[in-house]
Amino acid sequence: MARIALDAMGGDHAPRAAIAGALLALAELPAPHRIQLVGQAPVIEAELASLNADRSRLEIVPAADVIAMTDKPSVALRSKSSSMVVGLELQPRGLSDAFVSAGNTGAQMAASMRILKLLPGLERPAIGTLFPTALKPVLVLDSGAHVVCSAEELLQFARLGSVYAEDLLGRTNPVIGLLSIGEEDEKGNAVVKEANALLHASGLNFQGNVEGRDIPQGQSERGPIDVVVCDGFVGNILLKFYEAAGPVIMRMMVERLGLDAGKVRKGFSEFDYTEQGGAPLLGVSGVSIISHGKSNDRAIKNAIRVALRAVESGMTEHASRRLSQSVSA
Amino acid sequence: MARIALDAMGGDHAPRAAIAGALLALAELPAPHRIQLVGQAPVIEAELASLNADRSRLEIVPAADVIAMTDKPSVALRSKSSSMVVGLELQPRGLSDAFVSAGNTGAQMAASMRILKLLPGLERPAIGTLFPTALKPVLVLDSGAHVVCSAEELLQFARLGSVYAEDLLGRTNPVIGLLSIGEEDEKGNAVVKEANALLHASGLNFQGNVEGRDIPQGQSERGPIDVVVCDGFVGNILLKFYEAAGPVIMRMMVERLGLDAGKVRKGFSEFDYTEQGGAPLLGVSGVSIISHGKSNDRAIKNAIRVALRAVESGMTEHASRRLSQSVSA
Repeated sequence: MARIALDAMGGDHAPRAAIAGALLALAELPAPHRIQLVGQAPVIEAELASLNADRSRLEIVPAADVIAMTDKPSVALRSKSSSMVVGLELQPRGLSDAFVSAGNTGAQMAASMRILKLLPGLERPAIGTLFPTALKPVLVLDSGAHVVCSAEELLQFARLGSVYAEDLLGRTNPVIGLLSIGEEDEKGNAVVKEANALLHASGLNFQGNVEGRDIPQGQSERGPIDVVVCDGFVGNILLKFYEAAGPVIMRMMVERLGLDAGKVRKGFSEFDYTEQGGAPLLGVSGVSIISHGKSNDRAIKNAIRVALRAVESGMTEHASRRLSQSVSA
Repeated sequence: MARIALDAMGGDHAPRAAIAGALLALAELPAPHRIQLVGQAPVIEAELASLNADRSRLEIVPAADVIAMTDKPSVALRSKSSSMVVGLELQPRGLSDAFVSAGNTGAQMAASMRILKLLPGLERPAIGTLFPTALKPVLVLDSGAHVVCSAEELLQFARLGSVYAEDLLGRTNPVIGLLSIGEEDEKGNAVVKEANALLHASGLNFQGNVEGRDIPQGQSERGPIDVVVCDGFVGNILLKFYEAAGPVIMRMMVERLGLDAGKVRKGFSEFDYTEQGGAPLLGVSGVSIISHGKSNDRAIKNAIRVALRAVESGMTEHASRRLSQSVSA
């Protein structure tokens, strides 16, 4: 049985979207999986009542404070009784298996690092996001946790991404690409060049540098790619670029070709971030799923699904083993 | 009258695509504009003969050597009789007004800087590329000339982009955005934060930081954008990403919705790089248009059109004046 804690107060549309999302998730999740709604109990109670919820697999975990979307992570960390902190602390106390929030991303990262702790040998966690492609989805990381990354950190991201691609995407011996401006090893900035050498020596299934075009195509000229590694500055810009470019192109097509908007949207659900739901913070000893601040109930439901898959796959233990091997090697 | 020199030997499909492109361009360009085909005379003669070309506004400028796509820029610069060097040298000698090549980009940049010289107060040139958006196209620079850029260079790119947007895109008082991972001034890496401050103090119409999503949308929450400034690492990755993402999404739509591929392609010609033809190297004292290595005849024709517009708009003199003002200010 998995117990998934959900930040009932996090996100632009909280608490309604969070709580409605939890109910959608419970309708799909097989018993005995449970959801823990973390937040201000009276607010949650009122929402549940207004939604006429079946509470048999729901639990309320009271947390008096709410971290605002605009709070600095340092401020947020000082608030011991926020839904973010209370929800994450359930894991080291053995009371929960995962945490999902659509709240303040910076605060969630900082609190996850402090409360769940980093896996052995790791300096930083990374956010891994799935990009739709012409072939299978490609995992891009870091997509926004850290603006500046060292070559060693990019190597760690590759290890984390490899575990994620095996456990959550079912890829065997995942192919890693390093994002740069040319496929040749010597192309890129100083950090990328150094990371290229580290990756070649890493024992990972490293394909070499990949270019921007290889992500939407799902492959470079050398073959399909499973994981693309980059710093959080580039990754975040690309993620947001793609989140907008997909819908913009589709809207243009609907208008110019007189297509049915609903049909187009439905046929391209992978370009809808609510479909993905949330991205795991990779590299912490536990499960922390970061959802879009704008998440609606469907996005929350899908984020809970991602959390369950992360728990059931044993991804954290797998990553921990993999990183320990690389440290001792 | 404009005289446009074309590197007949540059690009994956040279000399055929270059020469066929020149003929397509001449069919469109009003007299007395002329094209100068630069390269190995016997090769050019043979192509012209096989294409049965009208040579009344064509001239052959002999150049014995060819710079390979894989040559290092330094190697390329030493070859005094290459089509690249000979074609560019026509400008300072007063014999030509612009140069277009689909050849080795690194060599073209290096040769353009050495032969045409940089505009006053400039440390580096930038490649400016038009990105299709839901509104008007947005100029993104640098899209690949320089992997690492200082804050001062990003400011210079903004000045160059502003001139380009006025002269080639007809925008009045162009709105500049600085690409980052959040719209707040304090978001981004150290160079971006410094550039943000310089841009606010620059007198340019600076909107502030923009995010990845604002490019395909053609606007941020603060309003439409004309120019987006970033370093060449991020810009090149984004450019190649978009060049692939557009066609990938369209192909998916054609397949999944059973649309007519030809009709879709035609309705979305802005996602076809051959339509844009070429990107000016901004910041040199002259006109040097960089075309895609894969350019076909239509791409070359469109690159020649871009060159003509750059010449006729007086963009170089305008940029030179603008930069001189900012240096003396």
